[in-house]
Amino acid sequence: MATRLITLTTDFGLTDHFAGVMKGVILSLCPAARIVDICHEVSAYQIAEGGFTIAQAYRFFPPKTVHVIVVDPGVGTARRPLLTEAAGQFFVAPDNGVLSMIYSGEKHKVRAVTASRYFLGNVSRTFHGRDVFAPVAAHLANGVAPSRFGKPVTDYLRLDFDTPVRTGKRVWTGAVLKVDHFGNLITNFRPENFPQVRAGRFVMAAGMERIGRLAQNYAECAPGELFLIEGSSGFLEISLSQASAAKRLGCASGSPLELTVY
Amino acid sequence: MATRLITLTTDFGLTDHFAGVMKGVILSLCPAARIVDICHEVSAYQIAEGGFTIAQAYRFFPPKTVHVIVVDPGVGTARRPLLTEAAGQFFVAPDNGVLSMIYSGEKHKVRAVTASRYFLGNVSRTFHGRDVFAPVAAHLANGVAPSRFGKPVTDYLRLDFDTPVRTGKRVWTGAVLKVDHFGNLITNFRPENFPQVRAGRFVMAAGMERIGRLAQNYAECAPGELFLIEGSSGFLEISLSQASAAKRLGCASGSPLELTVY
Amino acid sequence: MATRLITLTTDFGLTDHFAGVMKGVILSLCPAARIVDICHEVSAYQIAEGGFTIAQAYRFFPPKTVHVIVVDPGVGTARRPLLTEAAGQFFVAPDNGVLSMIYSGEKHKVRAVTASRYFLGNVSRTFHGRDVFAPVAAHLANGVAPSRFGKPVTDYLRLDFDTPVRTGKRVWTGAVLKVDHFGNLITNFRPENFPQVRAGRFVMAAGMERIGRLAQNYAECAPGELFLIEGSSGFLEISLSQASAAKRLGCASGSPLELTVY
Repeated sequence: MATRLITLTTDFGLTDHFAGVMKGVILSLCPAARIVDICHEVSAYQIAEGGFTIAQAYRFFPPKTVHVIVVDPGVGTARRPLLTEAAGQFFVAPDNGVLSMIYSGEKHKVRAVTASRYFLGNVSRTFHGRDVFAPVAAHLANGVAPSRFGKPVTDYLRLDFDTPVRTGKRVWTGAVLKVDHFGNLITNFRPENFPQVRAGRFVMAAGMERIGRLAQNYAECAPGELFLIEGSSGFLEISLSQASAAKRLGCASGSPLELTVY
Repeated sequence: MATRLITLTTDFGLTDHFAGVMKGVILSLCPAARIVDICHEVSAYQIAEGGFTIAQAYRFFPPKTVHVIVVDPGVGTARRPLLTEAAGQFFVAPDNGVLSMIYSGEKHKVRAVTASRYFLGNVSRTFHGRDVFAPVAAHLANGVAPSRFGKPVTDYLRLDFDTPVRTGKRVWTGAVLKVDHFGNLITNFRPENFPQVRAGRFVMAAGMERIGRLAQNYAECAPGELFLIEGSSGFLEISLSQASAAKRLGCASGSPLELTVY
Repeated sequence: MATRLITLTTDFGLTDHFAGVMKGVILSLCPAARIVDICHEVSAYQIAEGGFTIAQAYRFFPPKTVHVIVVDPGVGTARRPLLTEAAGQFFVAPDNGVLSMIYSGEKHKVRAVTASRYFLGNVSRTFHGRDVFAPVAAHLANGVAPSRFGKPVTDYLRLDFDTPVRTGKRVWTGAVLKVDHFGNLITNFRPENFPQVRAGRFVMAAGMERIGRLAQNYAECAPGELFLIEGSSGFLEISLSQASAAKRLGCASGSPLELTVY
């Protein structure tokens, strides 16, 4: 029995017809599909942010879910569409590194999608979400075998935006993976790799400030105090109680961070 | 036969994976669930605004719908998750007053949700929408009886943000419940309680202006004229024809209003 | 067998309960309905923009889909609700020209919806999306025949916002139909009507700039270079590589454009 659940993660925003049209394409080809929006507000062209978003979400979906990820600054060029199998699920996305966190976290098999019979009739130069990725997802949800879409490849693009770089004996340079809706900075530091942080022996430099406290919940800190917290993302997050840490620090996706432990 | 309809009302916004992840959790536990977004753009931490939003929506949904409301500045603290039965429907929300308008409008039974076997395995400190509220809703939609989740309680928090206070013989002080997308100010004055307003014998003070007209529809007023209207919300609303009353008046959620009748 | 697929296109935004309430009304009347959001972020009261949005989307949906379009500055006045049959689908919308591109592109039959037994009990003056358009769509999806809703009419409003006007031997004046999420300007010039554009013999004046290049994809142009492209919309679009053409040019929905060919 084929899956029927398809998720969408894009940088298309919600002010246009783009996401709605992808759903029309899917439901025309696979009337039984159930479609879930993960996020359409990935910052435009931000591959790392899109990659973080799908990496946060996929593990909460049932086996055989088809995830479609379209953050695709190279649309219309020769960059390939890919079909990745990992964690018992499917991922349909451009070959631009947006699935890097899936590759680093799960065993995976990647295919280049070359079978254009699964695309819409006239593929535009600017909207492969509609013309390529949505129909491929619909056919997958209909039970078409992955091998029908194209051959396995190994030269797909992998990026390492989710890994801090050691720059000294006790120093790592990392980055902000994403600023969430509440202004929390989600860093690329995983707490299990930094036991000194859990022991309170650290300084995190962000923007013009230095943060030395790890909190257990948002409410325990005074208003105006910056702190680290082990957020729901599995990464260390920089927060301000009921206010935006991002605004206070002037940080955005990709902003550099420096962690020193002692 | 159990309900399968679950609605979501949160302040999570749409720029993150949060709402999508809640849907994955629900569909993993209750594959037949049908999920409807009521609103994810409740202003961050604004309990009264979230409470107004669900109060506007629930009566239009079928019996046994499960409504999940997550506006939850106390996440990670000891505030309890609640399961409320009212109007033949279910409401899953934190114990912070967000359901006050349901309590004041409907007969209701409230339970503290203590049965952690219905939560996800590792409850985070920052994302109970995913770890507590979504799985409880999914189990409810699967037909688990309300009594399985916890015991009835009577000491839940009730707020009175939807009721103006009489401050003089002919004077009431109220507040803006919400500014809608078009800039209309939804007040907490119910027209049926103020017959003098319907008779045109009133002055509403808002921002630096005084309003003395009750209109029947948006089109009958000249551009630039402020007026009251009996909006679809069941409350008096302050509007400007095809323009934002909120911008003109400098008002926001919670701004004070004063009604004088004569 | 009746359709069960209903789409929504509105200017209600996503910060309120409006779209969620429409879904509750639909699911209460037609529990088997499947609802797809096309867009709720049409600019407030912009009929041409709403008309462009549904015109971009409908052809990708299955036969018998019911499309609900609510961009309705005249709500509460005598403007009629319409039910249009075109392209094997249904369109429920106010009589204000929002379906003009459907009328110009497809054979169509238009009815004025007068059968108030298909409305909610008490029709408000301000929210016909909830009280009129959603319930009519639900009854249609339940298989009620179009003729039951009202009689055919021919005096419905048609606008011509999608057609440039010839203003000289080699000159046409057009307009921006919409600015998309990426800042691309979607014009109302159809490339098949202007072979000189495809041959590179043209100048498009927009804002304070003149554009003379037609690109094949976004990536072939240098950063900072404005170009035309045959976008996925079927219209010529004005773009900047990985940046907002709208910001650069200071253009918005409705801004004038002038095309000269040679």
